[in-house]
Amino acid sequence: MSVSALVFSSSLALKLLSGAAPASAKSAPAAKPAVVPLSVSEKLVGPALTEGHAYARLAELTDGIGPRLSGSEGAAAAVQWALRSFQADGVKAWTESVKVPHWVRGEERGEVLASDTTRGHPLFLLALGGSPPTAPEGLTAEVVEVSSLEALTALGDAVKGKIVFFNHTMAVAADYGRFAGIRGRGPAQAAKQGAVGALVRSLATASLRTPHTGSTRFEEGGPTVPAASVTTEDAELLHRLVAAGPVRVKMVLGCSELPDADSHNVVAEIRGREKPDEVVLIGAHLDSWDVGTGAHDDGAGVVMVMEAARLLKKLPQAPRRTVRVVLYMNEENGLAGGRAYAQAHAAELPRHVAAMEMDSGGGRPVGVSVRAGTGAQDALRPWLPPLVALGAANFSTREAGGADISPLLPARVPFFGVEVDASRYFDVHHTHADTLDKVDPQDLARSTAAVAWVTYALAEMPQTLVRPEAPATPFPVAPPAPTPPKSAAGH
Amino acid sequence: MSVSALVFSSSLALKLLSGAAPASAKSAPAAKPAVVPLSVSEKLVGPALTEGHAYARLAELTDGIGPRLSGSEGAAAAVQWALRSFQADGVKAWTESVKVPHWVRGEERGEVLASDTTRGHPLFLLALGGSPPTAPEGLTAEVVEVSSLEALTALGDAVKGKIVFFNHTMAVAADYGRFAGIRGRGPAQAAKQGAVGALVRSLATASLRTPHTGSTRFEEGGPTVPAASVTTEDAELLHRLVAAGPVRVKMVLGCSELPDADSHNVVAEIRGREKPDEVVLIGAHLDSWDVGTGAHDDGAGVVMVMEAARLLKKLPQAPRRTVRVVLYMNEENGLAGGRAYAQAHAAELPRHVAAMEMDSGGGRPVGVSVRAGTGAQDALRPWLPPLVALGAANFSTREAGGADISPLLPARVPFFGVEVDASRYFDVHHTHADTLDKVDPQDLARSTAAVAWVTYALAEMPQTLVRPEAPATPFPVAPPAPTPPKSAAGH
Repeated sequence: MSVSALVFSSSLALKLLSGAAPASAKSAPAAKPAVVPLSVSEKLVGPALTEGHAYARLAELTDGIGPRLSGSEGAAAAVQWALRSFQADGVKAWTESVKVPHWVRGEERGEVLASDTTRGHPLFLLALGGSPPTAPEGLTAEVVEVSSLEALTALGDAVKGKIVFFNHTMAVAADYGRFAGIRGRGPAQAAKQGAVGALVRSLATASLRTPHTGSTRFEEGGPTVPAASVTTEDAELLHRLVAAGPVRVKMVLGCSELPDADSHNVVAEIRGREKPDEVVLIGAHLDSWDVGTGAHDDGAGVVMVMEAARLLKKLPQAPRRTVRVVLYMNEENGLAGGRAYAQAHAAELPRHVAAMEMDSGGGRPVGVSVRAGTGAQDALRPWLPPLVALGAANFSTREAGGADISPLLPARVPFFGVEVDASRYFDVHHTHADTLDKVDPQDLARSTAAVAWVTYALAEMPQTLVRPEAPATPFPVAPPAPTPPKSAAGH
Repeated sequence: MSVSALVFSSSLALKLLSGAAPASAKSAPAAKPAVVPLSVSEKLVGPALTEGHAYARLAELTDGIGPRLSGSEGAAAAVQWALRSFQADGVKAWTESVKVPHWVRGEERGEVLASDTTRGHPLFLLALGGSPPTAPEGLTAEVVEVSSLEALTALGDAVKGKIVFFNHTMAVAADYGRFAGIRGRGPAQAAKQGAVGALVRSLATASLRTPHTGSTRFEEGGPTVPAASVTTEDAELLHRLVAAGPVRVKMVLGCSELPDADSHNVVAEIRGREKPDEVVLIGAHLDSWDVGTGAHDDGAGVVMVMEAARLLKKLPQAPRRTVRVVLYMNEENGLAGGRAYAQAHAAELPRHVAAMEMDSGGGRPVGVSVRAGTGAQDALRPWLPPLVALGAANFSTREAGGADISPLLPARVPFFGVEVDASRYFDVHHTHADTLDKVDPQDLARSTAAVAWVTYALAEMPQTLVRPEAPATPFPVAPPAPTPPKSAAGH
């Protein structure tokens, strides 16, 4: 795509836009269009699409540093890399301390033992983050299959001494939210009912015998069981074998929880030219799982927001408000970075006028999302035209959000976001296969361009967004699940 | 699909067919249509599509027995299972001795060592069948990347002491034949030039960090090197890192070649009612790789031909000629079963009137292939109408063939085949992911029906096919690569 195609007269763009995103009947009458400095869009969108800078950074992070689970050497190296990179871009940056969990994977293997119906099979599994280890010789028990937390509860103590196998029907990315609770809370529930282990079908939209890890949570001081994900293939195998007769599984998990580690969020900022105390916060999480190299989750988000900062810094004049970038540590297994930021900056939060976290992979942009009080879409609408040719000049039906910014909810910070196509995100999410080759450089460049421009819009627009109501449960126990925007279905 | 939809008047069918497969201008004028007993098609196609018998057998073979590399306990168990299954079907069956290679996989792992450009990475690899082991402590050397055997030759002794990394551009199933020689002959060539190891990019059309194994060949008494396949992701990683500077890899392979083992082909037959000495041979290979459960390769072929025999045996009267089923041992790493059959039955081969091997997975049928002398298509054409609703009533542009029947080429046995959609076959071929869930029961049933009917056609037709010319090189060194039929491209 040529850059010039993206820069067109605002009248044409507004005409196109009015077709793409009709004003909601519920929203306030459209305000008189603000004077949007479209010439700036060229300076943000152009380089984002042509220079390949975000993708090159993603290669440094994934090939150069690799996996970066909280507490690991990779995570520490990523912090130093991010600091160096911001400095190379001339963007002021610093670290802020975060105490993080330090869970480490060990030897792990599983097998279906031979029986009347099978000569036995290996099980392809990954311990879930937070799982305790088995005894060194492993754990052997009969499998009980359940398809939901409710079904487990109904079994009562019939699971005593057994390995609970959680099966489910995740088929498309949009199912993630429905089933993530099984991974997050299932093993703890199984432990309470006397089970000795848990196997969870991977939360996957594709598999080539590919296990997907993720975190599971046990209550402080409550019972625990060794817990692992198995591939969808192995889940199907277990399902068939369980239907035919008793199935015994052996699992060996060598994982362990080390003492909490000292780590850091990386924070950078471009001070606003007129309202430096008003902060537009953009972020992504720097940690990843210990498998794969976290290219989509969340390397892509990291390089998008870093590149937005680099390009904003190069503008002839800074935006009206301060743009602050936070690369959070520990989104995957604790959310310590998100909580630490909210705590350390509590006094500033009333002046945080907007916040975004990019954390749904490096897909192409498909829309803009908002979570704010009345009139937010009307305020943003005049700023959307430069996104037409990127395919993102419409409002998503999904509310903006993000795990690491969820601690800002009680402070009623408005959220915004660039929605990306996440339809194939759960093919690789939390797997060994989340690697650089899975990220399309064109898609990444387009989403980066959209992030840079929308961030500028929030930092430059004359109005500030009306703050939303505070939610009933301010700190969600589970990070909100990234789901693909509904508007992406037809693309 | 209802069975009744498949059974229609021959006039309608022939009309449909004449549109689907116009007579070639080069072929002889069409013979007067033979009297084709269409009522029999109902007795073959109906049960194949409705009873699910082939799929149930495939579950027994894959879930119950699992992998079955030549010489393994799994292979021996599969022989006994096949014998029992034929006997349960009332089909006379026996075993014929085959001496097979007995290669076993051991511990295996690889890693890219840390350097100025990377903190290091694990490599996801599988030793290639036939590879020698590394020393127990592994092998560490610098990587040299080449993209072809010619490029390797051009490097001469510049690869001395190095690990040769074979990269290539396989993208679709039809590319397999172009690149399989790199896996088969590359490591031997690298060894001759003084290399100390070989890594071969997996021959894959999809990957989630999924290595694809396969056999590699060294000359008797010639130099060898430890050789493994790496995933496409790891190949891309190596490619990027090699471009940036020297890359050192450590690989540990614990595989070994044990003494040749005693094994068996399983042979079954339905004696012909009029010409019992004329043999229509149908087959598939019973061995599989030691990873996955060989569901597509070649469990699917095995159950198709077994089911064809079961259904032919249930007909009110046997076909005119003898139908013989051979489940070959050792297609994957030696072809000992195919050679043993040709040798043991050498005297009979002049009366082998047709031979087929099903070995391209369990996809849906897309056509019928032939390799014979003049007039073969004309002789077969009247028998195609029952395949219209199965989508296979056309002639493939590809010649029929198969690794295990290639030793029959010098005897000029005509070959036939049911071509299946193999466009996704190389997603799972020779991987841990070749498991039952990858085979669609409907597709398998349709191809099974087509195999049963086409086999019947060859055994019942009044004519015998004209024998083809003998090939210049009768025993191919490498098994012919299964490639998807060109006619499948538009489906």
